[in-house]
Amino acid sequence: MLLNGRPSRTIWPAAGADAVTVLDQRALPHRVESLVLRSVDDAVHAIADMAVRGAPLIGVTAAYGLALQARADAGDAALQRAAGQLEASRPTAVNLAWAVRRMLAELMRCPVGERAPRAWRLAAQLADDDVAVNERLGEHGVALLRALASRAPNRPLNVLTHCNAGWLATVDWGTALAPVYRAQAEGLAVHVWVDETRPRNQGASLTAFELREQGVPHTVIADNAGGHLMQRDQVDAVIVGCDRVTASGDVANKIGTYLKALAARDCGVPFWVAMPLSTLDRSLHDGLAEIPIEQRRAREVTHLAGRASDGSTVEVQLVPDGTPALNPAFDVTPARLVSALITEHGVVPATREGLSSLFDVRQREPIDGR
Amino acid sequence: MLLNGRPSRTIWPAAGADAVTVLDQRALPHRVESLVLRSVDDAVHAIADMAVRGAPLIGVTAAYGLALQARADAGDAALQRAAGQLEASRPTAVNLAWAVRRMLAELMRCPVGERAPRAWRLAAQLADDDVAVNERLGEHGVALLRALASRAPNRPLNVLTHCNAGWLATVDWGTALAPVYRAQAEGLAVHVWVDETRPRNQGASLTAFELREQGVPHTVIADNAGGHLMQRDQVDAVIVGCDRVTASGDVANKIGTYLKALAARDCGVPFWVAMPLSTLDRSLHDGLAEIPIEQRRAREVTHLAGRASDGSTVEVQLVPDGTPALNPAFDVTPARLVSALITEHGVVPATREGLSSLFDVRQREPIDGR
Repeated sequence: MLLNGRPSRTIWPAAGADAVTVLDQRALPHRVESLVLRSVDDAVHAIADMAVRGAPLIGVTAAYGLALQARADAGDAALQRAAGQLEASRPTAVNLAWAVRRMLAELMRCPVGERAPRAWRLAAQLADDDVAVNERLGEHGVALLRALASRAPNRPLNVLTHCNAGWLATVDWGTALAPVYRAQAEGLAVHVWVDETRPRNQGASLTAFELREQGVPHTVIADNAGGHLMQRDQVDAVIVGCDRVTASGDVANKIGTYLKALAARDCGVPFWVAMPLSTLDRSLHDGLAEIPIEQRRAREVTHLAGRASDGSTVEVQLVPDGTPALNPAFDVTPARLVSALITEHGVVPATREGLSSLFDVRQREPIDGR
Repeated sequence: MLLNGRPSRTIWPAAGADAVTVLDQRALPHRVESLVLRSVDDAVHAIADMAVRGAPLIGVTAAYGLALQARADAGDAALQRAAGQLEASRPTAVNLAWAVRRMLAELMRCPVGERAPRAWRLAAQLADDDVAVNERLGEHGVALLRALASRAPNRPLNVLTHCNAGWLATVDWGTALAPVYRAQAEGLAVHVWVDETRPRNQGASLTAFELREQGVPHTVIADNAGGHLMQRDQVDAVIVGCDRVTASGDVANKIGTYLKALAARDCGVPFWVAMPLSTLDRSLHDGLAEIPIEQRRAREVTHLAGRASDGSTVEVQLVPDGTPALNPAFDVTPARLVSALITEHGVVPATREGLSSLFDVRQREPIDGR
């Protein structure tokens, strides 16, 4: 996608294979800064501090983190320790564990001396795969949008999205926003309602930023406003990303997603989840009971950073002194509220059968690599 | 309720009947400041700028505004012009129009020379009536809480509330929080989940402030988190206030209320609306079609003020430059999602029959004064 008018990825390896650079998403939308990761510790911190975020992108960042470890010490113990550190850095998104375990399995089969270059190639491959997967998500998703548009040909489609499941959550294209970018490329008019997505405001800062860079019309709203807009026929579809999907189609995604799914159901608005298959956790069946929900710091709720009128970044306190806060980072939307899952292999119902059909087509090949 | 440990109201008249002082809610929670209103223009600005807010309190403030006008010029034309200004200052809450029209009707029946002292007494009476109504709301509401507590005797009840429908939204006690304060007085343990309530953060600033002043245990959460907590049995009841209720029981309240009502229904959690009868608009039948929804400035979404580490209040920008935002201030919760209405005359179903029963009991006396 475009950054200052130039096609860019969110993560790019150094030519010497000794570092990887990421766009530092903590500085957005007010400053474009990059961050160089030179070790697995750097990668762990970048993920835990959310310099990089978004399930697909943290998977690729973790893969490069393991590759950096392989360069420093490619022994079994060192790699396994690094893998454990990376997996623990964010607990909800499954892509992270998926990428790390996939890398580790491959590397363990290599002689130690070949592991570093092999790890680098694998990480690069995962990054390229992510781009290809998201392009396909976009193709499948835009077909859904075209069908909606045929019923309302004289105005832009209104798509509501929550959090950031765009370019910045992936290596390129995005998941939930891939169909929107594809629509733009095809000349199909789309306007995006951007949930600001408290407490970390990924919508107001990241989604608004990348839509602006790409020239897609959009309007930021408080998270509270989406139901009201759906009641008044101002939303044609909701498209969100996901951090983990169970075998039965339950969807863990950014906190607040469940509320939008409820409103969509109540108002007859399609609620679509863009899901790379790497986000599927076939080992889980009951999302509410089984998906671990990351609890983040209360300070993310009680304080907030933004740009002051003098251009500096200032953190302000929103609550009275001493006020306690709770900060669950994700919620689970039951499969019954999901109209369809948009995957790289096609659009399927959020059911066990729908998800199984993706594997049947591929002769039960273990797509997820585990 | 308590302010710095002393029982206080949110609005109090000057002894000379020439001004009325309000707690300036724009400075909360970081500074306790008052604002003196000396004219109807002062009252209009205090309401429109949300120095005072909350449906019951803006009704009483408007009443004092009209009384200040009567002191300056009590002629028919002047009073009618002032009434029009006051009614236009916020369009959604019906208590404002209710208070203004009730005052005006009484004053028009008085000789001009008697209007100023009469208006002052009427405004004071409306303020006292609000306190009495809220006490009764608290008594009826606490009976509901006691019934819930009998099923979970060994832990505090968890009540979730949205926006501020507490002491600060009224003259005293609050509407949605009156049952909580009553529970506290009776020794019934209650913990309150406080929705921060973007974009103006009345929960994080005002509700958290008054609960802290009153010593009621509470935790602030992002508006996105309530559904997740309800899914996990961490909410025993939702209690909210309202700005206008139709004859059929549809409820206009702060934007985002509808989403919480949907989650409560989905999770089997009671969703109660505390409703002084002054909030009932018997002329309306379809809340979605008929209740006007105030649209406020985009800047309330794109910017936010809080306390910086040096103690100063700083406004920060949350979005990229030039990002458009939409800011509907209220939404409508359909009656079908409301478990019950808590009124000063008892708890009734959110139905035409339930609301009518309140009037039957009082022999169809026109309670709302219109």
